[in-house]
Formats: sequence, structure tokens, C-alpha cells
Amino acid sequence: MSRVIEITELALRDAHQSLLATRMALDDMIPVCEDIDNAGYWSVECWGGATFDSCIRFLNEDPWERLRTFRKLLPKSRLQMLLRGQNLLGYRHYEDGVVQRFVEKSAENGMDVFRVFDALNDVRNLKTSIDAVKKTGKHAQGTICYTISPLHTVAAFAEMAQRLQEMGCDSICIKDMAGLLKPQPAYDLVKGIKQRCGASMLVHVHTHATTGVTLVSLMKAIEAGCDIVDTAVSSLSLGPGHNPTESLIELLEGTGYETRVDKERVLRVSSHFASIRPRYREFFSEFTGVDTEIFKSQIPGGMISNMESQLKGQGAADRLQEVLLEVPNVRKDAGYPPLVTPSSQIVGSQAVFNVLMGQYKVMTGEFADLMLGYYGSTLGEKNPEVLKKAEAQAKKPAITVRPADLLKPEWEQLSTAAHALEGNNGSDEDVLTYAMFPQVAPKFFKSRAEGRKNLGKDPAKKVPATKAPAAAAANEPGLAAKVNYVITLNGKEHRVTVAPEK
Amino acid sequence: MSRVIEITELALRDAHQSLLATRMALDDMIPVCEDIDNAGYWSVECWGGATFDSCIRFLNEDPWERLRTFRKLLPKSRLQMLLRGQNLLGYRHYEDGVVQRFVEKSAENGMDVFRVFDALNDVRNLKTSIDAVKKTGKHAQGTICYTISPLHTVAAFAEMAQRLQEMGCDSICIKDMAGLLKPQPAYDLVKGIKQRCGASMLVHVHTHATTGVTLVSLMKAIEAGCDIVDTAVSSLSLGPGHNPTESLIELLEGTGYETRVDKERVLRVSSHFASIRPRYREFFSEFTGVDTEIFKSQIPGGMISNMESQLKGQGAADRLQEVLLEVPNVRKDAGYPPLVTPSSQIVGSQAVFNVLMGQYKVMTGEFADLMLGYYGSTLGEKNPEVLKKAEAQAKKPAITVRPADLLKPEWEQLSTAAHALEGNNGSDEDVLTYAMFPQVAPKFFKSRAEGRKNLGKDPAKKVPATKAPAAAAANEPGLAAKVNYVITLNGKEHRVTVAPEK
Repeated sequence: MSRVIEITELALRDAHQSLLATRMALDDMIPVCEDIDNAGYWSVECWGGATFDSCIRFLNEDPWERLRTFRKLLPKSRLQMLLRGQNLLGYRHYEDGVVQRFVEKSAENGMDVFRVFDALNDVRNLKTSIDAVKKTGKHAQGTICYTISPLHTVAAFAEMAQRLQEMGCDSICIKDMAGLLKPQPAYDLVKGIKQRCGASMLVHVHTHATTGVTLVSLMKAIEAGCDIVDTAVSSLSLGPGHNPTESLIELLEGTGYETRVDKERVLRVSSHFASIRPRYREFFSEFTGVDTEIFKSQIPGGMISNMESQLKGQGAADRLQEVLLEVPNVRKDAGYPPLVTPSSQIVGSQAVFNVLMGQYKVMTGEFADLMLGYYGSTLGEKNPEVLKKAEAQAKKPAITVRPADLLKPEWEQLSTAAHALEGNNGSDEDVLTYAMFPQVAPKFFKSRAEGRKNLGKDPAKKVPATKAPAAAAANEPGLAAKVNYVITLNGKEHRVTVAPEK
Repeated sequence: MSRVIEITELALRDAHQSLLATRMALDDMIPVCEDIDNAGYWSVECWGGATFDSCIRFLNEDPWERLRTFRKLLPKSRLQMLLRGQNLLGYRHYEDGVVQRFVEKSAENGMDVFRVFDALNDVRNLKTSIDAVKKTGKHAQGTICYTISPLHTVAAFAEMAQRLQEMGCDSICIKDMAGLLKPQPAYDLVKGIKQRCGASMLVHVHTHATTGVTLVSLMKAIEAGCDIVDTAVSSLSLGPGHNPTESLIELLEGTGYETRVDKERVLRVSSHFASIRPRYREFFSEFTGVDTEIFKSQIPGGMISNMESQLKGQGAADRLQEVLLEVPNVRKDAGYPPLVTPSSQIVGSQAVFNVLMGQYKVMTGEFADLMLGYYGSTLGEKNPEVLKKAEAQAKKPAITVRPADLLKPEWEQLSTAAHALEGNNGSDEDVLTYAMFPQVAPKFFKSRAEGRKNLGKDPAKKVPATKAPAAAAANEPGLAAKVNYVITLNGKEHRVTVAPEK
């Protein structure tokens, strides 16, 4: 008898977030919902992460309405979201009341599985959301951000898993956002968690394909007892995205493991996105191959480009190598935080400052906050010298409490501010939208009635990025068919609309 | 202690053959030879396959000179080539004397490892080349073309391996040209061959990345005892190409296996080709993602597009599904040949004929030859009914001897013809070039002195392939500035050249 390996399909969230800058229009997803709903996935990730931000910032789309649409079109499926713990989907810590309200509303609008993570792996930052999920009766998935350091051993991760289990999590996710999880560590980690939490604790592995090794890691995770893996249909896979769903299904043949996913339906979903994807060419991630440099530097690609542009801004582009060597030092001084948003930016910027101005001569406000515990705790001890400097520069003390414990209830205030905005519909959902993106929400509320936008474009009409702007206009067939020209005929200037010769 | 897994680097041959239509110029490979030579590869595949044809047909380059260049620039490396057994690098069976001469000359010019295969897995078609290789003292690698059928069991493949061993092969290659080799069969096959041939028989696995599963298959092959695997540096990997060298190196960490390849050198090689590859955009394989449809149809993608275009030519594009269903029947009737050039085309065309004109009402000459044994023997029995029809239509008997046994010595005749050609340099190598490509060689000999061409182009100047022809013209910056239009002005048609409004 084969053991069934369950699959979470990422096409509707992380796949297009990773490959198409989160720009996929809901209308390009609706046609495949029936096939996805009947394909036999364990869950369908379709909300959270950057999609909320992208909806209101770029697509003039109400993210709550998107969720309700998925709920309606995927009646048989578990809907899954990615939630940044105490940060929800925003970029700061929210007070517990806001977190609880967000979870309640998400569940009410149709969410089933909440994958909750914290960039520092500080479980205290996960507690409120997990409690709130449990209260709704939905599935709380506690997440371990996978990272590599002398302290991030299998034992340490397994202990974190146990704490998540004690907090009531229904499953544990190993989240490998950078494609760093190699096959043997994947095997050891899944084994370690299963040993610590018991064989019945569901273990779910999320990897990115970036380094080209992680499909093998998924195989090894499966051999170690992993229950659920994340994949995306092949037409929305690979590069900075994920491993292809079809390949995972096929590769298990004869191994003693099998999925219960309907290949025909998956191929139809994939074929739909293959036809849609070229419409988003302008949002394509530049990098689509395999990059193993990260194994050498341990620094995610996105972080390197951030540091490069900071250095360029300071006319010091030639000092990147020094900065790359400084990153591990800064990371160590800060107690080995995982390098993921926002800690990756915070550590990277400080490394740039250290190289340009001398070690910790100047500290960014964010780095001081990280040192002083305002983002949460890290696995490693902070460097006491650097900690002292942080206190001096930030003129505030280090904290050991959970950061959100310092926050006062803020729902009433957010509610009043949100309801005062033009176009606000008076719902709690709108308050949450405003709470998360106070800069973007006002404009969105105002324009919401105009309806959602589809930024996809006919690829035949696309101007390649390498094209000179002048040629670009002539190249749009719509324009080429009918263009206003100034022509000189018989010595006289005419403004005419012309059509190309057939 | 870790077991060392050896690597063959494919960048200089199969990688660009699979991804850039074999068009890579020698001058774009020369700069990385030093790094490749010192990287610690088991061998460097750099010759044979389609490169010989491409050299004289497209690059005005003497393939023998290319081989000598590699020999000089890769002094520490085993040079490896792909040889189509009795077909050498051409498209017919050659008489033994020509085969022997080709192998001698290849060895003399620097070749070390001869990977010899036959499209039908008929070992008789490999014997002359393997004997010739052994006579030169070089490495003879006997090849099994991996295919799937009820008869192609592990036992059957292992028996073929044993026959290759008995013929004196120094190693056995499992050649998975279509990306069909799944992890468990990879494991079983390597185990089966090792059991049958002894643990000391070197097993070398060649896979393509097409279906997205084969890096996992390489891992499983390694676990089963495989000694050498084929990969290509990441910038020339994936899609219809191969698995990335860097990923293979990295994924073994901690598994008890390791390569002895220098990562830094590999990264430099990869980075060189990353900068070169865009210059060959016009030759890019259209398909670069993952395609698992082949698992369903068992029909390689290239074969499907051939059949599609045949059907279109007959105004029957709508009958592809019927043809796809007919292919397995035709293959069975022909004794289950592997589907690889030329058997894939032969079987595919006959399937088209069967659908359009009725089962075996008309037989292609090639299919009749296949049925009658003129390409060699197949693992399965031929359908006797179809065999009778083939004899009737081809008006010749079935044969059971090795096809080349019917050929008369031809070296003298080839030699005379070759030496009569303008620009022929009188060498045996030129005779072999002529023997292989009698249509192309005359033109090449004549133009050889003009020196080799580099078809790579500045990518900034390239017109994308997706453009409609009309728009494409308008899109050339030079033309956009000045376009011929037919305009109707004041009721009269004018042909004018106009410039866009500034």
C-alpha cells in the first residue's frame, strides 16, 4: 500500500507572487477554479502574502471580495493563506485586538488554513494569531522559517516545532523561502520534528525552486515522513517560484508514495496558465533559471540587489564584496535572525553602513530596534558591545517582552479613521484594509467602485524591454493600424491618420 | 567516508544542442576551457551528436579542427563524444571499414570516451565501433536507450548491459533522451545493471530535464550505485536540456555522496555562458519549462510536432488525437523500438499514414525497412501481418543479419569522390566529413578557408520571435523611422514614405 502525499497548490498565490510580481488578475484565475476545486489538493493557497497589498495598490480590487469569490468558486477546497503573525499582512506589529479581528474576519469570509510565520521565528509573535485561529475552529499551521546558522540545528528547529504544537497548531510548516533547504537537511528536519512532536503531527514542506535542488529535498522530506508538500502547476513554476505539481505527481510512481491528485485536471490548469502567463511579461521576474550562489553567500538574491542599489546610491558600487563579507558578522551580532523580510533588509542595510562608515559608527533605526528586541527575540545571543551602542544611539532600552505587549488597543482609533475615508463601506473588513495599508487604502476606497483592473496585456502587443521608446509606439499593432502622422506631401504638411499596407 | 560521484559536463555539446540548436560558436566556448579543464569533471562532452553537422552546415567550421582545439585547450580532461554506432554521425549505416576509420581518426585527433548508441538498442549495430574504440585503447561506453514498454523491463535492460560488457565496454550509459526516467525506475535500473555486470562496472546516467523529475532520478541512481552523472552548468540547463551541474554538487551535501568538482570554477563557467546565451536568442528552443505530457502519451514532444506538421500539410490537423492513439499500435507492431531519431520519425509518419489512409494501406519506405530489419532488430516480435504487408510493398525480404553485413567496402569510393572536391585537403578526416554529409561537405570544403562563423548576435538588436511579420518590420528601429504606407487623402490613394511624429 502506498502512502498518500498531499499537495497544496500555490498557483493562485505564491506562484504568481514569485513569478509575476503578484499581478495576476482574479479574472485570469476564475476559469480554472472548477478544475482546481476538483483536482484533489489538500489545500489551495490563494490569499495573504503580498496579494492583499497588490489588490488595493495595483489592481483596484477588494481583497476581501477576492476571498469571497474563491470561497464561492472553490466550495470543496480548503482555502489557505499566508499570515505574517503579529504583522498580519502589513509591515508593523499590530495590537492583539486587531490581530484577532483580522483572523475572525478572514475565517468568516472563507479562509480555512492559516499558515502563520514570524520573520525571527519568535513564537511569541505567532501566539495571538494562532489562538485566534483556534477560536474560529479553523486550521492553524505553525511555521518554521528555515535558515542556516551554527545555532539552527535540527534539535533547535524541532524544539520550535514542539512549542508550536503546545500552542495548539494543527500542523507544522517548514518554510524555505530562499531555496536553501537541501535534501539531507530536509530529511533530518522532518524526521526530527516527527520524533519530537509525534508521528501524527502533520508536517508540511514549502520550498522555492531557486537553487534547483529542492524537488530532491521534497522527495527526501517525503521519505522522512512529510505529509504535505507545496507545488505550483508547471506553467507557473521554477525560477524564483516553486517545484512543478505535475513533476511531483509523476516522480512518485513506484516509490511507495502517491498523490491523490487528478493529473488531467492539473494539466488543464497548467495549460490555462501557460496561455495567460505571457500576458504578464512586463512583470516577469528577470531571473528564471537556477541560482546556487546563495549557498555560497547564504544571502538571498533579493537582499544582494537591495545592497547593490544602496551602494550605488552612495557611489560605492565597488564595495559589494566587502559588504557580502560583513553580512555574516552583522547577522551574528544580531543573534542569527533568519534572513527574510524584514530582517534581510535590516541586516543588509547595516552591513552597508558598517562598510561605508565603520562598524556600527552609524546604526539604522531598524537595526537598533532589531538589536533591542523590538521585532522580537532571536535564537542567538546579541553581541553585548553592539547592544550597548544600539541603546545609546536609539536612546531607548532593550526589551525582553513580546513587542506587541507594549501596544495599546487601537481598533477604535483605526475604525474611526477608516470610516472617515471617502468610499469606505463601513465594514470591519475595510477597517482592516486601512489598518494594514493606511497610505494606500484611502485611494483604493475612493476608486473601488470603478471595478478591478487586469494588468495583463496581449503579448503580441508587448514592447520588449530592450526596445527604444520611439520604436515602441510604432510597434503596438493597435496603434500601428491607425497612427497619427505628420506627412509632407507636395510641399504641404498634413496631419493624417494612416493604416499600414495590407 | 563519502562516495565520490563523478560528473560529465555537457555544456560544450548536448547542452547547446538541446537549448541553442547546436549553434554555439567555438569562440564562445574557448574562454571557459581552462576553468572546465581544471574543474575536476570525469569527462567533458564536446563533440559528436549534431555538432559535426552543425559545424559544416551552419558555422563554416571544420569539426576535426574543433576537436583538435578542445584537445589542446583541455589537456587534463577526458574528451567525450556521442556516436550513433553504425550510423557514426550521419543518417545511414556505414560499412565497417568507414566506421573503423572514423573511430581511429577521432581517437587520433584527441577523443577519449566514445559513448556509442543505437536507436533500436541493437547491440550488433554497436559492435564495430566498440571494437574499434577498444583497439585504439580509448574508453568505450556502451549505451542503453531508455524507453518504456511492456518488454523494456529492468531484466531486459540489465541483459543488454551484460552483452555490452561482454563486448568489452568500459562503462554502461543509461541514456534517457526524453526525460522519461523516473526516480524509482532509475534506482531499479542501476541496481539491476550493477547486479548483472558486477559492482565494478561503471554506470553513467544521462537524462534530460524536460519533465522536471530527473534530478530526483539522478539522486536515486546515485543511491543505487551509479558512478557518473551528466549535467550542464546552470546557465545552459533545464527545459529540453539537462539538470544543472551546480545543483547536483550542492544537493549531495550531507548525503554521504560528494563530487570532486570545484564549485568556483563551475560558477565561472556558468557565468560566462549566462552572458553568452542571450546572443543566441533566435535559436532558443521555444519550450523552456517543464512538460509532463510525455508521461501520458509516451511520445516525445519533438515527435508530436513532426506529426502535427505532417497532418497540417494534409489539411487534417484535427486528427492529431487519433494519431496519438495510433502511435502505440504502430510501435507495438514494429516490436517496440525506442522512440528516438530516426525510429520516432518513422513510427510517427506511419501512424499519420494509418489514420489518413487506413491501417498500413500505404507504408513509408522507412517503415517497411524498419519492419524488415534493415535498421536492426528490436526487442519485441514484429506483427506478422504487418511484416507480410511490408515485404509485399517494399518488394524485398525481411533480413535477420546485421544490416551493415549487407554493405560492401566503400572507403575507396568515398575517398575518390571526396578528394575530387574543390577545397578538399586530402586528409582522411575530409573523406569522413564527406562520407557523413555528402550534400553539405562540397560547399563547406569550398568555403572553409573563409574561416568559422559566429552566429551569436547582440541581444539588444534582436527582434522578438512573437512579433507578427508586419509589426516586426515596423519595429526595426531603422525602419520605424521611415515606413511605406498607402494612405487615402482627399479620396485619392497615395503611396508615401512617412516618418513618425516627434
